[in-house]
Amino acid sequence: MKQAALDYHAHPKPGKIEIALTKPAETARDLSLAYSPGVAEPVREIAADPENAYKYTGKGNLVAVISNGSAILGLGNLGALASKPVMEGKALLFKRFAGVDSIDIEVDSESPQAFIDTVKRIACSFGGINLEDIKAPECFEIERRLIEECDIPVFHDDQHGTAIVTAAGMLNALDIAGKKIDEAKMVCLGAGSAAIACVKLLISCGMKAGNILMLDSKGVIHTGRDDLNQYKALFAVDTDRRQLDDAIVGADAFLGLSGPNLLSPEQLQTMADNPIVFACANPDPEIHPEEAKAARSDVIMATGRSDFPNQVNNVLGFPFIFRGALDVRATRINEAMKVAAVNAIRELAKEDVPQEVMDAYDGVQLSFGVDYIIPKPTDPRLLGRVSAAVAQAAIESGVAKSDYPKHYPLESLNDV
Amino acid sequence: MKQAALDYHAHPKPGKIEIALTKPAETARDLSLAYSPGVAEPVREIAADPENAYKYTGKGNLVAVISNGSAILGLGNLGALASKPVMEGKALLFKRFAGVDSIDIEVDSESPQAFIDTVKRIACSFGGINLEDIKAPECFEIERRLIEECDIPVFHDDQHGTAIVTAAGMLNALDIAGKKIDEAKMVCLGAGSAAIACVKLLISCGMKAGNILMLDSKGVIHTGRDDLNQYKALFAVDTDRRQLDDAIVGADAFLGLSGPNLLSPEQLQTMADNPIVFACANPDPEIHPEEAKAARSDVIMATGRSDFPNQVNNVLGFPFIFRGALDVRATRINEAMKVAAVNAIRELAKEDVPQEVMDAYDGVQLSFGVDYIIPKPTDPRLLGRVSAAVAQAAIESGVAKSDYPKHYPLESLNDV
Repeated sequence: MKQAALDYHAHPKPGKIEIALTKPAETARDLSLAYSPGVAEPVREIAADPENAYKYTGKGNLVAVISNGSAILGLGNLGALASKPVMEGKALLFKRFAGVDSIDIEVDSESPQAFIDTVKRIACSFGGINLEDIKAPECFEIERRLIEECDIPVFHDDQHGTAIVTAAGMLNALDIAGKKIDEAKMVCLGAGSAAIACVKLLISCGMKAGNILMLDSKGVIHTGRDDLNQYKALFAVDTDRRQLDDAIVGADAFLGLSGPNLLSPEQLQTMADNPIVFACANPDPEIHPEEAKAARSDVIMATGRSDFPNQVNNVLGFPFIFRGALDVRATRINEAMKVAAVNAIRELAKEDVPQEVMDAYDGVQLSFGVDYIIPKPTDPRLLGRVSAAVAQAAIESGVAKSDYPKHYPLESLNDV
Repeated sequence: MKQAALDYHAHPKPGKIEIALTKPAETARDLSLAYSPGVAEPVREIAADPENAYKYTGKGNLVAVISNGSAILGLGNLGALASKPVMEGKALLFKRFAGVDSIDIEVDSESPQAFIDTVKRIACSFGGINLEDIKAPECFEIERRLIEECDIPVFHDDQHGTAIVTAAGMLNALDIAGKKIDEAKMVCLGAGSAAIACVKLLISCGMKAGNILMLDSKGVIHTGRDDLNQYKALFAVDTDRRQLDDAIVGADAFLGLSGPNLLSPEQLQTMADNPIVFACANPDPEIHPEEAKAARSDVIMATGRSDFPNQVNNVLGFPFIFRGALDVRATRINEAMKVAAVNAIRELAKEDVPQEVMDAYDGVQLSFGVDYIIPKPTDPRLLGRVSAAVAQAAIESGVAKSDYPKHYPLESLNDV
């Protein structure tokens, strides 16, 4: 795998993305329209009305994938430059799945203020900003400030993309397990930015805050602790449970966004009937699916891995969320749009699966159930469904600047 | 023209460039190499040695075209966003002519310090930086600081690209006129960043500073003036000439980088035999070529326009200069590389012109002489000649980090 991954990135030329022309540039006349003197015309139109940038430039379909490399994948703070392959990978996924043009920008600064200043100053170049791999807690302040101060969607995918796909899977798993969201008890192992965003969105979707126990490296986040930052403190509950061993007893669901092998079979056995286990640590989950099944045959299991059923994969979310937001010129990606994405993803999982999708997974029959709670990333229907739901929610919640669809009709993207 | 230019930019979709994938991204395996988990491998390699970014990412072939929109074309300070069509146009030319991937970044700040900070922080994302349409005198400080503080080539094309192509044409015009560069007297009308860069490079190529009279809006820049900034003051000469009327008398060459119709036929008539007139104001030159020919049949004339012979067009320079610099991982674009580009461009003009190039210009016969002092932008030989000369000069002057050619052999680019 290691050598294959390096070869993939190195040959036949370095990287994964390039620039291509969308207009003819062969003849002297072409060039006189594309550059001097013709280019002066769109310049004048944009100077007269900034909205014209969406008409005459690529801004409206261009998302910057921006990181400072302070929390790269599960690898930690390796610096801005080292994050470039990940950010280019994100750009590849944006284009592949949703026809969104995307360029990576690595910001060589760990100062949140410098990062914010930098991104704000270059934001006018883009139609949206996807923040990526920025460590907590700085990522919260960075995202909050940029959302406030930019007039284009700013979305920290590690938080909200993860949350949207996780929530879609969790809601479907609860349905299958015959559990009600407003009664379900969940343990969340991990209290980083993804975990916090997942818990927040699940609460937006109907889960009760009082039914959620969140654990950081020191154990259960409870009201008696005095070592919590403002972001974790929001989720402190009044409980006498202290560690995973006692927190997990009787829980309906486990959400792991922590590290490998942190949930034991014995702990799993203390959970309620039809327990739901989202073991999302990558590449090694909190409990291996086979170990979980051996310990509890009634478990409904999801991981971050593509080689087991129910992969919780951000690519089910971010390309289509931005597609929908860009299509209606949304000024932000708000809670209504996130919930709309959750519902669109979960509803799609309940529909018949196209044969082509099953063929790509060795012909395994896929239908809504314990081994198929969430669509496959290559399901071509995601583009239309999720993007349209997000666009519609943007319009209804009053953050859309144009009607749907405008510049980039979704139909035309089915063959991107 | 106006409507055609707007239509070109708007349809079938806005803008001129997009992102394309260079690697397969269809199957689950493709995606596992491009993104999680495979992408962790190049991340680790780059964290271990930053040079590996050139091996595993697009950095080495990616140039940022960056502007603050403070001096857009001849239109003035219209702001960052309004410059986007021009910057996208530049990106289009980079790709079309030299296979260089290029993305535009508009920086919404007129503070030189904020601009420098911003560009420095994002510089690691790119293999080179092309500054564009930044007003003088701020552009000098911005470029100087960025060259000093970044480890990749930083090149203000309005200065140096213009200078390189102008110098190539001027040297050839002097040859054709039978004038020696170290004796030729030149008047430069205009004292902006392009004019200053042109005069500097012509001096590097052998013109005598004492033989050059530069004029700004207040007239001749002479040693008696006390209103000159440090950049103009460099070119002050001890002379009793004050305005163009007396400065132009007996001059061998006129270089106009000013505005329309500022050189009169009467003034042209006072120039030396075989006068050289580079009337480069765009779109309307300092003197119209037909008017000039009517006033002096022995004039050798160049303009910025594509509808007359001898177009001084930056596209003869910047794509190939960056191509050569990137090919050998040059850390900067130094004077030796600029002079090498000048010489490669002027030498090419002395060779037989391929029939395909002449066909593209209505079959007009092109051969070195008064109506063909400089190659045509569509001459496919420019890529190999200019890039190779620049790469060679980088190696010989000690600023190349790798041998030529490395990642992007020029041969493979002849069909970009």
